Amino acid sequence: MRELIILSALMLSTIHGVAQNYFSDSQKQAWLQKAADNTPKLIHTKIKPEYQVDVVDDTNAFQHKKAIKPRVVKDLYSSSFKDKSGIILDLGDHYTGYFTFSVGEYKSDMDAPLRLKFTFGEVPAEVTTSFDNFHGNISRAWLQDETVTVEQLPATITIPRRLSCRYIKIEDVGSSPYAEFCFTNMEFDAVTSANKKIAELPEYTPAIVRQIDKVAQNTLKECMQTVYEDGPKRDHRLWIGDLYLQMSADNYAFQNRELVKRSLYLMAGLSKDNGYLNHTVFEKPVPHPQRVPFYLYEYALLYNAVLNDYVEQTGDKETALDLWSVAKRQVQLIPDMLDKNQLFSSAKADKANLWQFVDWNEKLNKQVAEQGMYIFALDKTYKLAKSLGKEKEVAYIPGLISQMKKAALTLYDAKQGYFVSGKEKQVSYASQVWMILAKVVDKKQGKEILRRLLKDNKALKPGGPYLYHYVVQALIDCDLNQEAYDLVTTYWGGMIHKGADTFWEVYVPEDDFVSPYNFAPINSYCHAWSCTPIYFIRKYPEIFQKRH
Amino acid sequence: MRELIILSALMLSTIHGVAQNYFSDSQKQAWLQKAADNTPKLIHTKIKPEYQVDVVDDTNAFQHKKAIKPRVVKDLYSSSFKDKSGIILDLGDHYTGYFTFSVGEYKSDMDAPLRLKFTFGEVPAEVTTSFDNFHGNISRAWLQDETVTVEQLPATITIPRRLSCRYIKIEDVGSSPYAEFCFTNMEFDAVTSANKKIAELPEYTPAIVRQIDKVAQNTLKECMQTVYEDGPKRDHRLWIGDLYLQMSADNYAFQNRELVKRSLYLMAGLSKDNGYLNHTVFEKPVPHPQRVPFYLYEYALLYNAVLNDYVEQTGDKETALDLWSVAKRQVQLIPDMLDKNQLFSSAKADKANLWQFVDWNEKLNKQVAEQGMYIFALDKTYKLAKSLGKEKEVAYIPGLISQMKKAALTLYDAKQGYFVSGKEKQVSYASQVWMILAKVVDKKQGKEILRRLLKDNKALKPGGPYLYHYVVQALIDCDLNQEAYDLVTTYWGGMIHKGADTFWEVYVPEDDFVSPYNFAPINSYCHAWSCTPIYFIRKYPEIFQKRH
Repeated sequence: MRELIILSALMLSTIHGVAQNYFSDSQKQAWLQKAADNTPKLIHTKIKPEYQVDVVDDTNAFQHKKAIKPRVVKDLYSSSFKDKSGIILDLGDHYTGYFTFSVGEYKSDMDAPLRLKFTFGEVPAEVTTSFDNFHGNISRAWLQDETVTVEQLPATITIPRRLSCRYIKIEDVGSSPYAEFCFTNMEFDAVTSANKKIAELPEYTPAIVRQIDKVAQNTLKECMQTVYEDGPKRDHRLWIGDLYLQMSADNYAFQNRELVKRSLYLMAGLSKDNGYLNHTVFEKPVPHPQRVPFYLYEYALLYNAVLNDYVEQTGDKETALDLWSVAKRQVQLIPDMLDKNQLFSSAKADKANLWQFVDWNEKLNKQVAEQGMYIFALDKTYKLAKSLGKEKEVAYIPGLISQMKKAALTLYDAKQGYFVSGKEKQVSYASQVWMILAKVVDKKQGKEILRRLLKDNKALKPGGPYLYHYVVQALIDCDLNQEAYDLVTTYWGGMIHKGADTFWEVYVPEDDFVSPYNFAPINSYCHAWSCTPIYFIRKYPEIFQKRH
Repeated sequence: MRELIILSALMLSTIHGVAQNYFSDSQKQAWLQKAADNTPKLIHTKIKPEYQVDVVDDTNAFQHKKAIKPRVVKDLYSSSFKDKSGIILDLGDHYTGYFTFSVGEYKSDMDAPLRLKFTFGEVPAEVTTSFDNFHGNISRAWLQDETVTVEQLPATITIPRRLSCRYIKIEDVGSSPYAEFCFTNMEFDAVTSANKKIAELPEYTPAIVRQIDKVAQNTLKECMQTVYEDGPKRDHRLWIGDLYLQMSADNYAFQNRELVKRSLYLMAGLSKDNGYLNHTVFEKPVPHPQRVPFYLYEYALLYNAVLNDYVEQTGDKETALDLWSVAKRQVQLIPDMLDKNQLFSSAKADKANLWQFVDWNEKLNKQVAEQGMYIFALDKTYKLAKSLGKEKEVAYIPGLISQMKKAALTLYDAKQGYFVSGKEKQVSYASQVWMILAKVVDKKQGKEILRRLLKDNKALKPGGPYLYHYVVQALIDCDLNQEAYDLVTTYWGGMIHKGADTFWEVYVPEDDFVSPYNFAPINSYCHAWSCTPIYFIRKYPEIFQKRH
């Protein structure tokens, strides 16, 4: 995920200014040390490119491009490359890592440098779309095309940047007309910290579920590096919102507890002076947060959900106790963001430069969803407190939850049977789902709302997989199992039908070219927050693994 | 210089096939060892870019582009680079070497990779001409534009290829809109094996001569690396024809005898199986010749001129005796290239896949010039033999010279007062000059021919500095001192007036965009064979250093 908010110098003192050194430097250093101690060892797998494909037009394929005819390249490593320029190699699956090639002379003496262009693509259209007319609104440098001048042959060169791809297009964009050359080796050094084999699904599991499961595993695996990254092609970093979904999925997949622990400690060690967590952090060159004058507070709140679920899964109370003060701090800003009726106040959030995200759908009014997310976080925090015997320290929470739920119910339009958000009284998936997840309504009422919603074409739909995850969870929580199954198999299944090897950051079934960044090739096509089918499929076998 | 001949598989047995191992492998290894032993230590000078220029349109400037307003860049190393994209830095002079830059964050945290494009130019137009529409006929990779993806900040990166430039354009072609960055350092590590300070010319020397001398020194210095290179931007290698002119100039400049010795031994050690020398060789990754099915024999012949002049200058007979067998071998092919009248036969040369070069002017008929060059080489060889007491071994030479001169005279058209070349009876500078340098005519007759030639607009003019060098030499040899002075100060002076920092590979006063490679920016603008004014100015002080 990427911030698309206009930067502002305004800052709210409660977030950015006062309460200096809420946690001591030595405390933060100790947390960072624990993060470092839990750095996973990356597993390296060498992939040697041997296959090529043709990428052709196909209106039924994703972004109208399809890779066809996978075939072994004849004499790839023993013949002149001159007539192979433009070849598209296929690694056979999505990989994240480093690309090394060796190139030498071929039956001639190179009398000039060689200029080679490599384009690495996660999806076929990425290697056939020109980047020259890039008009995106984030750094063009994320696009994975690299032009290399080889001064002398033979040479072995590693592209310095880490790459994320299945397809590699190689073009000779400058070579001597008097000499030929040959690739003598290529190697993709794939890296991941996913270090466990996952049990196969029962054979009777529907084929589409098994396909979704496999691609979800792959997505998660690729995003597991020295932190849970949001995407291996773009951003390369830990965001708390992604982390929550990744951990949920990983509990049913590779179960790399070390990675969750590292992520929790990294966030804590890099907390702001006032004790609130940054929504995202960088690992390199040294762990640091991003100085930005806005704040994705809803992600900081999800930290408590991560910590609570981590203890539930692992029983590691030592870590949870160590980080309890962090969790306790995160929810303390909630009252400041509420109006006198205990409802989330967009005005207050704006004044505090909070980035309200919820989902990519830009039309979304976020009042109700934020209210739900805050309650959800308070609930997770109190659960955590109870499991650690710390209820007294947050004794205010049950009362606050109760008040906020009551307030939320004032936004329920009984006539329509929906929660309505903002002055415009908008009906959206986001609002209904977060009210259900916050248990503002009971299962029975939630079920009615969701049934209504699924048939309602006017309700504002989710803009991407991140919110769709919460929709599925809400359906399951309301016993709408068939609907949950249908949503997973049509939405994530839709990506499968369009050829996904890993699940995408953005997927709007009606339009393959939707991009929050105004340039589809710069979207991430292997994105953490899209990997959660593995969680649903394996946590709820009765829904997804049954015979259909 | 670059070969522009269509490759052919035809080879003449006398050149390419028979007489295997004319020199033993152990002999050649010994020569290569001596070449290695004489590898000069490169002198490194660190240049820190601090100035910028504007490159503007100016129809009077070379290629209609002029660098103006050199000025210190304010806060180049301590302020955001974002508003400086497109800046053209000026090193103040032409340098050859390696470029390193350090880039870091600036008052923000980089959340995306950085994509920087560097364009290195020897002349101003090189950094303002788009390379996208390259339509040249040699490797586009010689053009010095490099795009670098910087994955993490801070970073210190050295562009791997060696560069040759005065101007460096830097463009931000991809960076986060949410962060700024700053160059914290840049350094150009300039290298040369020119290791001696040259005496100043007397103050009364005309200003234009002093300017030419300085630029010629600079040109030679830049081409002096671990061999005498033809050009530091392009080719990067030893060609015998360039070597001859470079050594002639260096005798009056840096006097790096070690470099001549290394070059002579490198050529010998890499000679063909049949004992003939390759016209050019590469040093890296290990010394080797270029396998091509054509042969620039006239360059092999110039080896003997190099060796003869080297002994004359240094008295190093030991080296000359060691390499005498090589020199003796080079002239042995001459008789095979002559017709029954002892005239150079284009037909025989073509059959032997000889590349007849002489000059870049494509209209040139080369018969007469080749005849002259062969005689010139025979003369140099015999001189060398005499200085080494080896006349008996080449006792046939004086007779052959005599016959060839006599034959050459049959090509003299007394009516026109010119040597005429080929069936078309072409009158060219090349033909007259090489007849004079070969002493086919005496000084008096040469003088008459040259005076006629200088006034004759119909005679085919030289296509570049390489042949102009020999024109100047012929003028001096015929006591046409003022004409020699005028030619140097108008032709090389013409480059000075157009802003040359180093002398160019190609210069046709009427057209700045002439390129043997069909794309002017790929021409070399610091070229060995153009450095010879330093030789003329300092060998003939009475002509060039007198008061005018």
